[in-house]
Amino acid sequence: MIRGVLLDLAGVLYDGGAAIPGSAMAVARLKEAGLPARFVTNSTRAPRRHLLAKLAGMGFGIGADELFTPARAACDLLRATGRQAHLLIHPDLAEDFDGLPPAGPEISVIVGDAAQHFTYQAMNAAYRQLAAGADLLALAANRSFRDTDGQLSIDAGAFVKALEYAARKDALVLGKPAPAFFDSAMASMGCAPEQAAMVGDDAEADIAGALQAGIGQAVLVRSGKFIPGDETRATPRPSHVADDLAAAVDWILEQA
Amino acid sequence: MIRGVLLDLAGVLYDGGAAIPGSAMAVARLKEAGLPARFVTNSTRAPRRHLLAKLAGMGFGIGADELFTPARAACDLLRATGRQAHLLIHPDLAEDFDGLPPAGPEISVIVGDAAQHFTYQAMNAAYRQLAAGADLLALAANRSFRDTDGQLSIDAGAFVKALEYAARKDALVLGKPAPAFFDSAMASMGCAPEQAAMVGDDAEADIAGALQAGIGQAVLVRSGKFIPGDETRATPRPSHVADDLAAAVDWILEQA
Repeated sequence: MIRGVLLDLAGVLYDGGAAIPGSAMAVARLKEAGLPARFVTNSTRAPRRHLLAKLAGMGFGIGADELFTPARAACDLLRATGRQAHLLIHPDLAEDFDGLPPAGPEISVIVGDAAQHFTYQAMNAAYRQLAAGADLLALAANRSFRDTDGQLSIDAGAFVKALEYAARKDALVLGKPAPAFFDSAMASMGCAPEQAAMVGDDAEADIAGALQAGIGQAVLVRSGKFIPGDETRATPRPSHVADDLAAAVDWILEQA
Repeated sequence: MIRGVLLDLAGVLYDGGAAIPGSAMAVARLKEAGLPARFVTNSTRAPRRHLLAKLAGMGFGIGADELFTPARAACDLLRATGRQAHLLIHPDLAEDFDGLPPAGPEISVIVGDAAQHFTYQAMNAAYRQLAAGADLLALAANRSFRDTDGQLSIDAGAFVKALEYAARKDALVLGKPAPAFFDSAMASMGCAPEQAAMVGDDAEADIAGALQAGIGQAVLVRSGKFIPGDETRATPRPSHVADDLAAAVDWILEQA
C-alpha cells in the first residue's frame, strides 16, 4: 500500500530546460488520487527559489514546503548543532544559507557543486578549516553529471573526496542517498518508509539509496541520465522500471 | 651498517626559501664520511633546473644525477610505455617533460602539484580523458605540505583522489612512497635497500614508505611539516626521531 511518493527532479520532471512530456500531468494525477508527493533533489547549483520558479514555469504546482534540497538539510543541521558554516558552494546557492541564527565558534565546512568556483584557493581555505577542527558536510557526493554539452563532467563528490583525503576526515553526506534526507521528506507527509515510493533516474542515489533507507518501492525511470544496464547496476535493484514518470505513476496508482 | 643515505628536500634541507640551520653542513659531513647521498623529493611544483639552482644557492653541493624527482620517473615510464601525456601540472614543471620521443595514441593523465592551476576546467579535462580510457599517473599523492605562509596547504594527492573517485580508477603513484622510486635512487648508489637510510619529515611517504620498500633505517626529523604525534601515526614507525638533519646525521654516522 503506497501512501506517499518521493520524486527526483532532473531527469524525472525535466531534462535540461524542458519538462519531460507527460510529467506535469503525472504529478497532477498523484494529487488527484490523494497521494501526497515530495520532491527530493541533489541539485546544489541553483537556489530553491530558482528551482521553484523553474518548476512553476513548466506547469508543476509544487509548494515550497514540498521541495527538499541538500541546502535545506544543511540549514536544519546547522540550526540543530549551532555551528557556523564555511561555504564551498556556487555563489548562486548562498541565498539558501541566509537568515541562520547566530552560531557558536565551531565550524562546519559545507561543500556543494561549486563548479568553476572549485579553485585551488577555495579548496585550500576549506582544507585549512578542516585541519583546524571543522567537520565536513557534503550536500551531495555524486561522481559525475551530464553537462550542458551532453558529456559527463566531474561532480562535487570528487572535491568532497579530495578534502576527506587531505584532512583525514569523513564527510557526512546530506543529500540522497542519506537515509535522513529521505526520512525528512517522508516525515513531512506523515508516511512510514515502507508506505513510500521513490521515483528517480539515478540507480544508485535514488533507487538503491531509497531501498537501503527502508523505502518500500523504488521506480527507476528510463528518462534523464538513465543508461541501459542501470536496471541491474546497483543493489538493491529497482522495484519497477518505467519509461518515464507518466508510466511510473500508472504503476504506483495500480499499487496504491 | 648504513652504506647510502636518501634525503628528502623540503622540511629536511630547507623550509620555504631558507636552508634549515646546520643542514648544508650535515650533507657535507655525510660526503666526508664516504657515505653517498641521493635526494628524493615529491616536489612537483618547480622543475629540476630550479630545484638544483635553489639547492646550489643555499650551499648544498648536489649534482644533477643525485636528484630524483617524480617527473623524472614519469618520463622514464612514458618512454617505456610509449604513451602520450595529458599533463595536469604546474606550468613551471612542463620543461621536465620536454624532449620525449613520439608517442602512440594511448594517453596517461599525469597529475602533479598544479597549485592554482587546479581549476575546475583542468580537473574536468583530466576527468574526461580518464572516462575515455586514459590511465592515471600521480607524481605524488601527498595530503598536505607546509606552505610559504607557514601553514599546511592541501597538496596534489587530494586532487588525485578526486579524479580516482570520479573516474572509478586507481592512480599509479610515481613518487614516494612508491618502492620503484626509492629503488631507482638506491640503484644509482649501488646500495642494497637494507644498507640504506632515509631521512624525511613525512611520517607516511618518507618513513613508513621507505621501511615498507625494504630500506633498513628511516629517520623522522622534527623539522618541516612534522607535528607532534607523527612519530606514532604511521606504520612501520621510524627507526629513529631526530630534531633536524644535523641530529639525524649524527645518528646515521654512529650506525655507519
